[in-house]
Amino acid sequence: MLIVMDAHATPEQVEAVCIEIRDMGFQAHPMPGPTRTAVCITGNEGPIAQTGRLAVLPGVSELIRVTKPYKLVGRDFRPFDTIVKVGRVEIGGPAIVVMAGPCTIESRSQLFESAAAVVAEGAQIIRGGAYKPRTSPYSFQGLGEEGLRYLQAVRHEFDTPVITEVMDTETVELVAEYADILQIGARNMQNFALLKKVGQTNKPVLLKRGFAATVKDLLLSAEYIMAEGNPHVILCERGIRTFDDHSRFTLDLSAIPVLKELSHLPIIIDPSHATGHYNRVIPMARAAIAAGADGLIVEVHPDPAVAVCDGHQSLLPERFADLMRQIERIAAAVDRPVLGRTPALEAFAE
Amino acid sequence: MLIVMDAHATPEQVEAVCIEIRDMGFQAHPMPGPTRTAVCITGNEGPIAQTGRLAVLPGVSELIRVTKPYKLVGRDFRPFDTIVKVGRVEIGGPAIVVMAGPCTIESRSQLFESAAAVVAEGAQIIRGGAYKPRTSPYSFQGLGEEGLRYLQAVRHEFDTPVITEVMDTETVELVAEYADILQIGARNMQNFALLKKVGQTNKPVLLKRGFAATVKDLLLSAEYIMAEGNPHVILCERGIRTFDDHSRFTLDLSAIPVLKELSHLPIIIDPSHATGHYNRVIPMARAAIAAGADGLIVEVHPDPAVAVCDGHQSLLPERFADLMRQIERIAAAVDRPVLGRTPALEAFAE
Amino acid sequence: MLIVMDAHATPEQVEAVCIEIRDMGFQAHPMPGPTRTAVCITGNEGPIAQTGRLAVLPGVSELIRVTKPYKLVGRDFRPFDTIVKVGRVEIGGPAIVVMAGPCTIESRSQLFESAAAVVAEGAQIIRGGAYKPRTSPYSFQGLGEEGLRYLQAVRHEFDTPVITEVMDTETVELVAEYADILQIGARNMQNFALLKKVGQTNKPVLLKRGFAATVKDLLLSAEYIMAEGNPHVILCERGIRTFDDHSRFTLDLSAIPVLKELSHLPIIIDPSHATGHYNRVIPMARAAIAAGADGLIVEVHPDPAVAVCDGHQSLLPERFADLMRQIERIAAAVDRPVLGRTPALEAFAE
Amino acid sequence: MLIVMDAHATPEQVEAVCIEIRDMGFQAHPMPGPTRTAVCITGNEGPIAQTGRLAVLPGVSELIRVTKPYKLVGRDFRPFDTIVKVGRVEIGGPAIVVMAGPCTIESRSQLFESAAAVVAEGAQIIRGGAYKPRTSPYSFQGLGEEGLRYLQAVRHEFDTPVITEVMDTETVELVAEYADILQIGARNMQNFALLKKVGQTNKPVLLKRGFAATVKDLLLSAEYIMAEGNPHVILCERGIRTFDDHSRFTLDLSAIPVLKELSHLPIIIDPSHATGHYNRVIPMARAAIAAGADGLIVEVHPDPAVAVCDGHQSLLPERFADLMRQIERIAAAVDRPVLGRTPALEAFAE
Repeated sequence: MLIVMDAHATPEQVEAVCIEIRDMGFQAHPMPGPTRTAVCITGNEGPIAQTGRLAVLPGVSELIRVTKPYKLVGRDFRPFDTIVKVGRVEIGGPAIVVMAGPCTIESRSQLFESAAAVVAEGAQIIRGGAYKPRTSPYSFQGLGEEGLRYLQAVRHEFDTPVITEVMDTETVELVAEYADILQIGARNMQNFALLKKVGQTNKPVLLKRGFAATVKDLLLSAEYIMAEGNPHVILCERGIRTFDDHSRFTLDLSAIPVLKELSHLPIIIDPSHATGHYNRVIPMARAAIAAGADGLIVEVHPDPAVAVCDGHQSLLPERFADLMRQIERIAAAVDRPVLGRTPALEAFAE
Repeated sequence: MLIVMDAHATPEQVEAVCIEIRDMGFQAHPMPGPTRTAVCITGNEGPIAQTGRLAVLPGVSELIRVTKPYKLVGRDFRPFDTIVKVGRVEIGGPAIVVMAGPCTIESRSQLFESAAAVVAEGAQIIRGGAYKPRTSPYSFQGLGEEGLRYLQAVRHEFDTPVITEVMDTETVELVAEYADILQIGARNMQNFALLKKVGQTNKPVLLKRGFAATVKDLLLSAEYIMAEGNPHVILCERGIRTFDDHSRFTLDLSAIPVLKELSHLPIIIDPSHATGHYNRVIPMARAAIAAGADGLIVEVHPDPAVAVCDGHQSLLPERFADLMRQIERIAAAVDRPVLGRTPALEAFAE
Repeated sequence: MLIVMDAHATPEQVEAVCIEIRDMGFQAHPMPGPTRTAVCITGNEGPIAQTGRLAVLPGVSELIRVTKPYKLVGRDFRPFDTIVKVGRVEIGGPAIVVMAGPCTIESRSQLFESAAAVVAEGAQIIRGGAYKPRTSPYSFQGLGEEGLRYLQAVRHEFDTPVITEVMDTETVELVAEYADILQIGARNMQNFALLKKVGQTNKPVLLKRGFAATVKDLLLSAEYIMAEGNPHVILCERGIRTFDDHSRFTLDLSAIPVLKELSHLPIIIDPSHATGHYNRVIPMARAAIAAGADGLIVEVHPDPAVAVCDGHQSLLPERFADLMRQIERIAAAVDRPVLGRTPALEAFAE
Repeated sequence: MLIVMDAHATPEQVEAVCIEIRDMGFQAHPMPGPTRTAVCITGNEGPIAQTGRLAVLPGVSELIRVTKPYKLVGRDFRPFDTIVKVGRVEIGGPAIVVMAGPCTIESRSQLFESAAAVVAEGAQIIRGGAYKPRTSPYSFQGLGEEGLRYLQAVRHEFDTPVITEVMDTETVELVAEYADILQIGARNMQNFALLKKVGQTNKPVLLKRGFAATVKDLLLSAEYIMAEGNPHVILCERGIRTFDDHSRFTLDLSAIPVLKELSHLPIIIDPSHATGHYNRVIPMARAAIAAGADGLIVEVHPDPAVAVCDGHQSLLPERFADLMRQIERIAAAVDRPVLGRTPALEAFAE
């Protein structure tokens, strides 16, 4: 249920609606929009009976029944795009945002070398894994807190926000101290305890689609985070499992227009994990931007041949430079600038 | 096995190699290249024993063992791109080619109206189904030969080649009389009798990927056609089946760079069947071109609401015009013109 | 639409209903049942308008609207199980039927050796491929008509019906001369021209599920055959494609109870192609019978190591003997005899 | 690497091998067998260089290189079947074990009623969810610790072990206090933090296969648990995601013989979640036992129509009684008793 307020409703009237909802035993989520505020009700199983109590409150314009299983993440609830702000970077706005860096932080120098290379080409967010989910218990599991400290150092050195994965509830607080964006990996997309925990922080969360998760599952997992009070959710498509093994996963770019129809949240594409092969990363990066993605997350390594993990899908710095040049051209063809590359948004307003 | 000839080998020397191969009980396929000719051997099970007989022939430069299960369709066999010529249209060359028209030919006027609309916007090939493979025996199965006659009329009226599906061996000859390109549908991708039959014609064939066919299966089906002597094969990705049902099929755009690596054949994308919804066709068309496709095949209907088949995935003429404008911009961003749109190839050569 | 006649309706009344249906432009399919006859209407697109004309005819008891996309194959249409008779063998009745023999007929002696072995253990139908659909054009494609002649010889020698695959419309008549059951392979499940052609014969047809075909697709393909007038259809599950490659295909045994709910047609399971490995064939054969299958089709080869095709999934004769002993016990546990093994049906009637 | 000791090696010799392995920087896992002990080395990346140091130690018979990515769970490592003991119940031995009860604990009375019904029919383990992973945050999430207390009460009342799901690292200790078997749900199969945590307990763990996890992924997740020191792992197949939606998931029974080849761990099948429909549970339960499963986990509810969760896949008590009767017959056909049903194991030894 969505309660749309009058354009001139006062904050006190919005608050009165929220109090009434809480009295009914549900949660109230006020959502200010450009011209009016809406209040979303969650926590109800099935339709709400006493809608009359809400309809008569001062300032209430309309009651809209939401039939989709998700609410806060849905376009029905919020027709305009959500922009997630990370420092001065806006994700989900008109400009394309590129996040880049090594899959796994291997050493201070490896991280700094990668970061220098990607920042020089316009990457706005530095990525690097300190805790790594590995299919085998005998594979390298990441540097842990040491890796987080390197991330912090690189963050200060380049004055650029960082994103890193959080794998369990117990380290959420620790990772949140160091990272600007918390990444939830594909294997944890339905780790509901973890979703709730990051939902209780105020940090932006990049939520990767599980490799057998439907678009609906992904949105419901995002709803878990938002229902806890954290609206800063970024969706990420990184490939699904299919019968074919020509690539590591099958990148589902058609999910982009579908998610844009269903949800107001930003969408980032990970062409590195999806394809698993460096020479397919650039074509898929171009295609992602052409299909309407809001940005990319890309693996870059100064020496992929010696990478401890996923070297075959990492780009050399010079290839990353090429990727940036190419997607800048595609972005221009869909009337979008690339943050860090295109001089000024005004160029597009002419 | 591939026999690479000297740059100065004479036609007689090439022929002598072919004769020797046939004497050994195999087939020989000479393939002239820009600087030298290669001869491919097929028909052997396992490695060829008596390679010495070939290595010593005059004009033979090198013997290359091909370990992939397909040969004629492979990049190993032919490193440069195949261009399939259909009248004055070149598919697989630098320029993007768009094929468009109704899914099913319903009437003369419907076909002419669609054709006029798409040709006006630059479509180079007119599509229209006369024989329709339908999952249910009670669905409309197409106008048959009457539809073919309308196709022929539209072909003459607009001086534009036409493509239509051939569903069985018995109608191959009939369809080949009317059509410039024979389309093999996804459900027939492993109808080997049909593949052999179209392989015995000299008509270009557009081969659609089955919705559970691997990239390797697709290439082997193309090999069936080429092994019969018809080299004019165009590959088409039109979506695969996965666990998610957000779209009719899941368009596998990552197959584009993979196929470009493995094969020299042109690749066309069908965003209409893949997505099953008109408002996802344009984003996926843009993405396909950005990923490196050589063209598109798109459904356009003057009045999708009354279409007998697949109306929800057909574009109105004005939306098709929008698609053409948008892909022209994407194509320019990857340095390719769109045939029928971009004034001259020279513009790109500057 | 299904017209259920009175229990005492005369043949003339049934015929009058059929005539009325044909007058309306549709097809009529009378289906005699144990107590009353029903007449199924096909050929209509959408609901039938003039049902009043039918409801008032003498002998008509009830009009039932059928909303499923298939009709003739559905339980709604025919609530009791269909039994397909092949000589004295009944498929779909209380007894389990096993079809066995080599994947591919390689020689007269190989076929006779296999046949002798399987018949000795109780196989009721001899299988053997004369025309083989192969993913690669360079793989052995079968002995063709020579293979059919060996089949005929083995059929006479052992007085046992034979099943073999028909791959294209052009050889349907030829194959039908030699075979007791026509097999449609998985890759041809939606080769609609072929389905129609075998639907015009009066031969039993074993229709294999395509490896990406839904249960609904399978039933619609069976409907194609029945709609042409051939009611002797046997369904066959032989594995589907999934993301895992632990086996050649993933055998979908849960399709058995689903198909038994939706359709009255017999169901045969092919554990050989599904698993692709001989030591998984017996467990899956047991499971199939336990799940409610009406029979099995199994590959047996006197010397799998030298088989030209699929040797790794073929059973040695002694393993086949073991399979028969094991499924006989499972069949008894679900109160079913195995034809050729269990002495008398009366044993179960006590 | 596996170090096989002499049949007469002393405990001190085994310990000396373990010390040497730890000195080399790896972990040592001694595994006593019926005739001799083996010691498995884990923690090495790549082959071990200094094998000479181990080969010369007293009591060492043989060094075996293990090339599979998993070790402790593999048949190479332990050729005989693992039996997991839960009180007096043995899982993985000759007898079939059935676990049953409600999906979700809704109330004390509902749990007791279900438990009474299933224990009366021979169920050896009572199941019931206190913490429920739900795709939507607005669905009922379980009674939590209150549910655990009901479980404890039912455990005492019926003197029967209980199994319940643990969803996050933070509640592992709490759940372990109440439960005899810790269940890891499909969505958490690659929640590596959780796997490690349950690996540090000494409780039996039932690990459900993720719905897009390969058999190899499942075994590697089991390896995570065993690598932490907990050898009491039970594998559970509960259906995978495929393109077809005829059932909730596609039960992959062919994984049973594959897992039995690759691993020594017991395998339990969950036909309730896999099929999602009560009338398909019994056929799939029969098929699972016929295919070689060691047991079942089944949902039973006294009144499925009012179940808060998954009512359509729960069996009524009388249907469960029918299931037990039917699988007892199938089990006998594969020479296995059903614990709680078949009077004495001796019956089978005759």
